[in-house]
Amino acid sequence: MLKDKTTVLKFGGSSVANADCIKQVCEIAVRESENANLVIVVSAMGKATDSLVKLAKEFNPLPEGRELDMLLSTGEQVTVSLVAMCLHQMGFKAISLVASQAGFITERAHNRARIAQIKTDRIEKHLNLGEIVIVAGFQGITEDGEITTLGRGGSDTSAVAIAAALKAERCDIYTDVDGVYTTDPRIIPEARRLDLISYEEMLELASLGAKVLHPRSVELAKKYNINLRVRSTFKPDDLGTRVVKLSEVRNMELTQAVTGVAIDDKQAKLGFMGVPDKPGIACKIFDRLAKENVSIDVILQSIPRDGVIDIAFTVQQDYLQKAVRIAEELALEVGADKIVFDENIAKVSIVGAGMLNKPGIAAEMFSSLYNAGINIQMITTSEIKISCIIKIEESHKAVKAIHDQFNLAYSKEEIIV
Amino acid sequence: MLKDKTTVLKFGGSSVANADCIKQVCEIAVRESENANLVIVVSAMGKATDSLVKLAKEFNPLPEGRELDMLLSTGEQVTVSLVAMCLHQMGFKAISLVASQAGFITERAHNRARIAQIKTDRIEKHLNLGEIVIVAGFQGITEDGEITTLGRGGSDTSAVAIAAALKAERCDIYTDVDGVYTTDPRIIPEARRLDLISYEEMLELASLGAKVLHPRSVELAKKYNINLRVRSTFKPDDLGTRVVKLSEVRNMELTQAVTGVAIDDKQAKLGFMGVPDKPGIACKIFDRLAKENVSIDVILQSIPRDGVIDIAFTVQQDYLQKAVRIAEELALEVGADKIVFDENIAKVSIVGAGMLNKPGIAAEMFSSLYNAGINIQMITTSEIKISCIIKIEESHKAVKAIHDQFNLAYSKEEIIV
Repeated sequence: MLKDKTTVLKFGGSSVANADCIKQVCEIAVRESENANLVIVVSAMGKATDSLVKLAKEFNPLPEGRELDMLLSTGEQVTVSLVAMCLHQMGFKAISLVASQAGFITERAHNRARIAQIKTDRIEKHLNLGEIVIVAGFQGITEDGEITTLGRGGSDTSAVAIAAALKAERCDIYTDVDGVYTTDPRIIPEARRLDLISYEEMLELASLGAKVLHPRSVELAKKYNINLRVRSTFKPDDLGTRVVKLSEVRNMELTQAVTGVAIDDKQAKLGFMGVPDKPGIACKIFDRLAKENVSIDVILQSIPRDGVIDIAFTVQQDYLQKAVRIAEELALEVGADKIVFDENIAKVSIVGAGMLNKPGIAAEMFSSLYNAGINIQMITTSEIKISCIIKIEESHKAVKAIHDQFNLAYSKEEIIV
Repeated sequence: MLKDKTTVLKFGGSSVANADCIKQVCEIAVRESENANLVIVVSAMGKATDSLVKLAKEFNPLPEGRELDMLLSTGEQVTVSLVAMCLHQMGFKAISLVASQAGFITERAHNRARIAQIKTDRIEKHLNLGEIVIVAGFQGITEDGEITTLGRGGSDTSAVAIAAALKAERCDIYTDVDGVYTTDPRIIPEARRLDLISYEEMLELASLGAKVLHPRSVELAKKYNINLRVRSTFKPDDLGTRVVKLSEVRNMELTQAVTGVAIDDKQAKLGFMGVPDKPGIACKIFDRLAKENVSIDVILQSIPRDGVIDIAFTVQQDYLQKAVRIAEELALEVGADKIVFDENIAKVSIVGAGMLNKPGIAAEMFSSLYNAGINIQMITTSEIKISCIIKIEESHKAVKAIHDQFNLAYSKEEIIV
């Protein structure tokens, strides 16, 4: 390589939405290329992917996965060529590469392909020529030349995978927000931007609907220990939030127990009521749902009363209709009295690596909700997360109560002072 | 192959401009697929290519050829996927292929690549599976995976090349007009649709601005003796115009001397005035223009008078500025008095395979122009074509006069009756 380190920058749809945005992206790229071999990964412009999906539906309500990938992959191909043209115009050497050219090999699974390997020869060849390499995110190619896509938010994953393959010293995810916040600042104006967060916390937040980073990209960054950064295209001097190893967070900060509060209002609840309390029922239900590709999130099984139990769970709202159909088919088989469902729910979660060693965090969360007059319908916990299902109308109030309870508007240092 | 013959259909931009058009295309495809293995070649939707070119210019007034091909090739990729989705929705087996998948190999010359070969294995595999194969026109791929395009109108060439490679029994070029006319019907309402025309005549008409078929595609059809048809997507029952071997035209019709009148109003005239009459002058001028990639059309050298001559020629208007610059550089070198140029000219041409054996056609053309009060500035002829350069304001009047003179509104049979 020309320089002794390589940097990968990823720019999302809002960062490349129009000519002015793309020029801004190129300014950032040029500056970064002074110190490192530079690879840029870009998404489709603005809402281009949504428009293409809408276009497809004019022809076929359920387009074949292969053909949809053929269509959607054009979005990123447009962006890479425009970024290259813009860099050329600014007087810099640059080349655009689509997945087939970048050696971005995936399995053959359309619309949600997993990455098999990245053959970096060609990317490295161009870096060695001193060129800025612009790679189309989101897309891949199978060994036999079929175009695939990684699924929504896949460009983050593309960037991290390339950073891993090139052993890049850094992967910056540029977006339209300036980092990861303690909670959604549109809901809680006091939300504080975090300078540092662990992969594990980010993963929980990403999965919980924080929408800043795609969970797969965080998983991958964690696996390959990629120095990840979330920052704003429109505030290029701001360093944003660094996503690092848990041990690094612990060493560098007197961690607060709770790092952030996430909200997911795209969930729905579904329950099998009055099921006989005998072995194998839960297994039967969730096995069938899994076979039909319905992902389950929170599961709650009631304590038996009069020999019957209730089994409730949450699914993404998009899958509710399908889940209800399956549930109604299963109701007789498992001997349920009835099937109930409710879309008007939200999941509010606290995430924090500091929770691991601090008892009483859950109690503190529940009491803050109780004091705000909010009823908890379901609870689920992991090592670094506690989630409560509540009424959707109460979700903003809940986030505010929790955010206040844990003093998230202030960093640890500020609290100590 | 499943069926004993293969048909290639090509649909231009106006035929796939929107969902309704594409549905119409699919209706035609389904009907044709009953009797033959079917390959469809499509262009970008409507004015998509123009829009992409415009988009590129927002970033770079002179985009690198490679990056422009990367961008433009997305246009056809969108269309192929939509056509496949539409056929699936109608219940038919179909698959879309971009150039890399269709084995459409070109040389590495961006924006104007020539076809090297078509590796038909994959197309044939899908035809053998009973699938309608939809191939992206206009684009190619180099042996090392670079995306190329064939230049404007390249989709016609793509279709004919695929027809040749597959030994297809027919290649139908569907467009927004119902065939080839004796002249432009928008100018001369009496213009007659031809049922039959020879490759040679079509080639002259195509080169002369008849805009129905791209000249390269006609060349290729002639070379491989492809049974070509020009027909309308919006009148699918109309057989349009067949383009066939010259001998076939001669056998099947008592050919009229003149088949059609073409008009080209995109020409400009440029002259070196008062050049000393000595050997090597013309050579020097045209060699230099060729080296700078300026294509010359009509050339006229005056008879020497007082030891000096005038050398005039026509170029496409797009190249006039460049040609004038070169001419001014050369003026001193060749000893010209001055350089003159004029954009307000048009080239009116008559084309006809029947001309070959009929003397007096040229005289008849000139006298029709004379009778209409039109002055001829330059003349050029080939075996089956006579072209006159006239004032652009008089071009419509000229076409009308010639069309009437040769009775082109009536077929030979009608004239005999």
